Amino acid sequence: MKAILEHLSAGQDGRLAQLTEFLRFPTISCDPGQGGAMGECAAWLAGLLARSGLHDARVHATSGHPIVTASWRGAPGRPTLLLYGHYDVQPVDPLELWLSPPFEPVIRNERIFARGAMDDKGQVLMHIHAVAATLATLGRLPVNVVFLIEGEEEISSPCLPDFLRAHGELLQADLALVSDSYMWDEGIPAITTSLRGLVALEVTVTGPDRDLHSGTHGGAVANPVEMLARMLATLKDAQGRILVPGFLDDVYQPSERERAALLAIPFDREAYCRRIGIATDWGEADYGLLERLWLRPTIEINGMWGGYSGPGVKTVLPSRAHAKLSMRLAPDQTPDLAADQVTRHLHAVTPPGVTVEVRRLAGGGLPWRLPPGLSALDAAKRALSESFGRDPLLVGEGASIPIVGDFQALLGIPSLLVGFGLPDSAPHSPNENFYLPGFHVGTDSLVRMLHYLAE
Amino acid sequence: MKAILEHLSAGQDGRLAQLTEFLRFPTISCDPGQGGAMGECAAWLAGLLARSGLHDARVHATSGHPIVTASWRGAPGRPTLLLYGHYDVQPVDPLELWLSPPFEPVIRNERIFARGAMDDKGQVLMHIHAVAATLATLGRLPVNVVFLIEGEEEISSPCLPDFLRAHGELLQADLALVSDSYMWDEGIPAITTSLRGLVALEVTVTGPDRDLHSGTHGGAVANPVEMLARMLATLKDAQGRILVPGFLDDVYQPSERERAALLAIPFDREAYCRRIGIATDWGEADYGLLERLWLRPTIEINGMWGGYSGPGVKTVLPSRAHAKLSMRLAPDQTPDLAADQVTRHLHAVTPPGVTVEVRRLAGGGLPWRLPPGLSALDAAKRALSESFGRDPLLVGEGASIPIVGDFQALLGIPSLLVGFGLPDSAPHSPNENFYLPGFHVGTDSLVRMLHYLAE
Repeated sequence: MKAILEHLSAGQDGRLAQLTEFLRFPTISCDPGQGGAMGECAAWLAGLLARSGLHDARVHATSGHPIVTASWRGAPGRPTLLLYGHYDVQPVDPLELWLSPPFEPVIRNERIFARGAMDDKGQVLMHIHAVAATLATLGRLPVNVVFLIEGEEEISSPCLPDFLRAHGELLQADLALVSDSYMWDEGIPAITTSLRGLVALEVTVTGPDRDLHSGTHGGAVANPVEMLARMLATLKDAQGRILVPGFLDDVYQPSERERAALLAIPFDREAYCRRIGIATDWGEADYGLLERLWLRPTIEINGMWGGYSGPGVKTVLPSRAHAKLSMRLAPDQTPDLAADQVTRHLHAVTPPGVTVEVRRLAGGGLPWRLPPGLSALDAAKRALSESFGRDPLLVGEGASIPIVGDFQALLGIPSLLVGFGLPDSAPHSPNENFYLPGFHVGTDSLVRMLHYLAE
Repeated sequence: MKAILEHLSAGQDGRLAQLTEFLRFPTISCDPGQGGAMGECAAWLAGLLARSGLHDARVHATSGHPIVTASWRGAPGRPTLLLYGHYDVQPVDPLELWLSPPFEPVIRNERIFARGAMDDKGQVLMHIHAVAATLATLGRLPVNVVFLIEGEEEISSPCLPDFLRAHGELLQADLALVSDSYMWDEGIPAITTSLRGLVALEVTVTGPDRDLHSGTHGGAVANPVEMLARMLATLKDAQGRILVPGFLDDVYQPSERERAALLAIPFDREAYCRRIGIATDWGEADYGLLERLWLRPTIEINGMWGGYSGPGVKTVLPSRAHAKLSMRLAPDQTPDLAADQVTRHLHAVTPPGVTVEVRRLAGGGLPWRLPPGLSALDAAKRALSESFGRDPLLVGEGASIPIVGDFQALLGIPSLLVGFGLPDSAPHSPNENFYLPGFHVGTDSLVRMLHYLAE
C-alpha cells in the first residue's frame, strides 16, 4: 500500500490537470442547451476510466443524459464496491457574483474554483484516481469495483432507477461508496449517516387573464402576486414550524441517545452563521440547529416571480405569479405523500379571485439513514483516521442524494457516504470550490479504504 | 364651425396615417436604451405642430427626456388653454402575448393596435388635429392655446415640475385640458372628476450574503423570499383592507350625495369582470366597486422576484428577494406620508434573520378632485353632448396623472379631464388599442370645445 500512496503523491500535478479538464465541461443538466457538453463529458470520462485500467468502460444512452459505467472484477471471492458519482452540475446564475468564470477553473488559496469542483466532479475523480493508482502499482485491486457515474443527479436522477432495474448484473455489488458530501472541517473527516429526501413543486397563481393597469383596476382585482405571497405565508408559523396538515406526522423522532450524540458534535453556531453570511440562524425553536439541518423537514421557496422586475416603475397588476418550492424530507417521510399534502394545503388556502395550479417537478428522492451495524463503517473509519490523523465524525446531511435510497430498494445494497467537500465549498452557489489538500489526502484515504473493505 | 368639422371629416385618412407614424416610435421612457427614439419622436412632434400652424414649436432638453411646446396666442382677451399630453409609453412585456408587434400599428375591427395607441399618443394627436383643422379652416382659433407634451409621464414626470416653475410665462393659461383618460363606453363620453395619486417603492430583503444550497442549509436560515412574502401578506387583511398604521386616516370621505351619484352610474359588474378576465372582483367589502376603484387607496405588488425561475429544479436558498410596490392614493392623501407609512410598516414587520431596504422610486403624484363650480365643465359637457349625441357621465379615474395636481400647485390653473380611451383599450397591457370611431368623433368634440370654452 505504501507504494500506491507514493505513486499517488508523485502524480499530483497530473491529477490536478485532469480535474481542470473535467471542470471545463459546462454540464448543467437542467439546461436543455447543454446536451452537447453532457455527451462530450461522458465520453471523456469513459476514456479516462479505460486508460485507468478499468474494463468495459461504456457510455449508456438514456432517455435523458448518458450514464457512464466501468468495472474491474479480478478479485473473485472478495467484496464488490459500487463507486457512484455524478458529472452533472447545478446552473451558474447569478453569474455576476462569480469572481472567475464558472467553467474556467482557477486555483486561489489552495482551492480550485469552478462549478462542480466539489459537487461532484472533484470527488468522482478521487475515486478514479484511487483505483487507477492501485491498478498502476499492483496490477490488481484488493476488491472488485464497478463505477456508476450519472449525469442527472442535480435534476433528481429521473433515469437512474430504470437503469438500476435493467442492469442488475452489471452493477452487482455488496456496498455502494458515495462521495458527494462534506468533511466536518479542514482536517476533520466525516461519514454521513443520514440524508434528507426531496420533492419539488411549481405553483402558478392566475388572476386576470392579462396584465392590467394597476391604477385603473387596483382595488377591484385580486393580485396574483399578493395572493401567492399570502398563500406561501401560511406554510409555516413565524418560528418556522411547518403548518401543512399531516406534514410532520411521519417524521422520524431520534432517540435520546441520538440527540445526545448530535449535541456532542463540536459545532460553532456563530462561526456557521458567519461562514454563510447571516446575522443569526432561524428555525424551529425547540430543536437544535444540527437536528433542524439533518433530521427536520423543510419547505423552502427556491424562487418566486411575477409582474415587472425591470428598471423604474411599471404600474401593472400582473396576470400571474409563480413559485418553485422544494421540500426536504426527514427520515420516514415519503416524497409522494409530502407533495400531496402541500398541494392540498395550497389549494385549501387559495383566496377567492384567483386560481392555483400546483405541478410536481421531475425527480425527488427518499430520505435515508445508515443501516445499524454495518461492518464497512469500521473499515472506512480506519482509513480516514490513518490518512487524516484523527477519527471521523458521524454526521447527518441536510441535502439529498436520492440514489442512496434507490440502491437499497432496487439493488438491495447499503451505502457508505464519505465526502470530502468543505463546509464553505459553496456547491449550488457562486464561487463553488474544492480544497486541494482535502482532494489529495482524501484520495489517500480512498486507497486505504479499498484495502480495508476487502478484509 | 361646420366648415371646420367638414374639413376634419374629409381628412380622416391623413390623420390616421399620422397616428400610425407617431405610434412607430418605441418611446418607452423607463428603458434607458430608448433615448434615441425619445429624441426623434419629440422632433417629429415639434415638426408636426409647426406644420399645423402653431407658433414657436420647440423641443426643450431636460435632465430626462425632452419636452415639446408650441403655442398660438392670436386671440387676446380670450381664455388660454394649456393642452397637455405625453408621447412616452409603458414597456411592452410580456411581449409574447401581443398579437402584433407593439410598435407596428395594425388596424383590426375599427381599432388600431400599438403600445401608446390610447395612452396617450392617440389623444395627443386629437388635440393637435382639432387645433390644426380650426387654423386651416378659419386662419385663427377662438381661444389661445399652448401645447405641452412631455416624455416622462409613465415614469411619473420627474422633470416636469421644474419645467413648469421655469417656464411660467410660456405656459401662462387659464385652464389645462388633459386627454389621457377614458370614455364610459362606446358612444358614452365622460369627464373625469377625480384621480388617484401615486407613489412607488422597491423593497429588497436580504438573507445570507450569497445563494445557499437549500438542502445543506434549509432549516437554519431565514429565506428572504419567504420573509418578503410574509411581510407583504401583512399589508392588507384577507378582504383587502389596508392594515398599514395611519394609511387610511387622511382618505377623503365622499358625502352621501357623492356616494349616491356613484351608485347611479350604470355599471355592469359582471361585464366588467368578464372584460378584464376575472371570475369575481375582490376588495374591501364595505365599499362599492366604483368607490374602491376611484376613491379608495390601494397597495399593489407590481412585481416580485427572487431565486431561480428557469426550467426544472434548482435547490437554492436565495440571498435576496425583491418587490415593487405602488400605492394609489385617494384624494387628501399625500405621496410623502403614504411612502413613509408603508416604509415604516415594512421595517416593523421584518422578521429576524433578514434585513430590509425600502427605496422610493422616482416620481409619484398627488391625488386630485375637480374644483367645485368650474364653468369650463359646462362648455365641455355641451361639446361632448353635441358630438356624441348624449350627455357625458361624470366619473372618477383610478389611475394617476400626477401633473394635474402640479398644474394647480405650480401654475395655479385648474384642469379639465376629457378622455377618449375605451375601457378595453388595454393601456399598460399587451394589445393596447384605440377605438377609431372615438378618435374621430372625439376630435369633432374637441373642435367644439375650443369654441365653447371661448364663451
